[in-house]
Amino acid sequence: MDIEKRSGCPINLTMEVLGDRWSLVVIRDMMFGNRRHFRELLSKSVEGIASNILAARLKRLVSLGLISKCDDPSHSQKTIYSLTEPAIQLVPVLAMIGSWGRQHLPVSEALSIRAQLLEEGGQQMWDHFMDDLRQIHIEDPVGGASGRRTSPVLAQLTEAFERVRRGSPDSR
Amino acid sequence: MDIEKRSGCPINLTMEVLGDRWSLVVIRDMMFGNRRHFRELLSKSVEGIASNILAARLKRLVSLGLISKCDDPSHSQKTIYSLTEPAIQLVPVLAMIGSWGRQHLPVSEALSIRAQLLEEGGQQMWDHFMDDLRQIHIEDPVGGASGRRTSPVLAQLTEAFERVRRGSPDSR
Repeated sequence: MDIEKRSGCPINLTMEVLGDRWSLVVIRDMMFGNRRHFRELLSKSVEGIASNILAARLKRLVSLGLISKCDDPSHSQKTIYSLTEPAIQLVPVLAMIGSWGRQHLPVSEALSIRAQLLEEGGQQMWDHFMDDLRQIHIEDPVGGASGRRTSPVLAQLTEAFERVRRGSPDSR
Repeated sequence: MDIEKRSGCPINLTMEVLGDRWSLVVIRDMMFGNRRHFRELLSKSVEGIASNILAARLKRLVSLGLISKCDDPSHSQKTIYSLTEPAIQLVPVLAMIGSWGRQHLPVSEALSIRAQLLEEGGQQMWDHFMDDLRQIHIEDPVGGASGRRTSPVLAQLTEAFERVRRGSPDSR
């Protein structure tokens, strides 16, 4: 793993891996948006990630073992990106970060409804969500990327997001 | 707040506030090491933070409302830095990050014993710890910085750290 390892503290090491503003945002888009191709991650980014930054972050996350790559059988030029087990286990971390952000920062309603549902759902929902993510990222990444394999928890979160977004002018 | 606000997503906003590798490490040292003066934060840093980076991060965290400053009555030249309520509420986030790091990254034994205890203690321990931190950072920052006011949870974590460190050659 190409991290600096300035100390063996778990908080420091996690920040060396994920503390660059974009890495966790890319993982978030793969996890909650099921964006599995470079083009989707680029064009649907609400934060407007730049193409070179996205490419560098994906490469780094692959080298760190948080993302895996495979060919897309339906598009010979395309690569499918999937979350690995360590990245899937970030669900509780992202849920806690989402709760904190929702409480202390100027979040938008549409973009925080999923954080609210994850907070309310607690550990039981996180466990279900992680099981779902294992199905669509690890066991069947091709089916998961194409939408043939779906996740009930993800569908629930996405439906809530779309509902709030339709009713709210402020989706950024 | 001087953050970019590239989107209103709670995960993105939290990373804009804390996703710079050093900010959370400074908060960690104030929270778990009760380091409340610039000199301590600088000289005891196991990651070897540079003086100018520490100064910039402290200033930024004060401007973001995560750290407060007050004069130290026993040293006219010194400033006491304290965590604010939003920073204290990062305890569950830091606990989750610590758990994840401990499981997936090459942590050292001494520097991960506190993360282990926080993980095992769960929400109840986090609540006690946050109450303790409110005492020594918000209600009585001067007494908390001088050690006249102490935190039982912090004492327990520190004692475990010192015990493991004495028994382990690898404390970085």
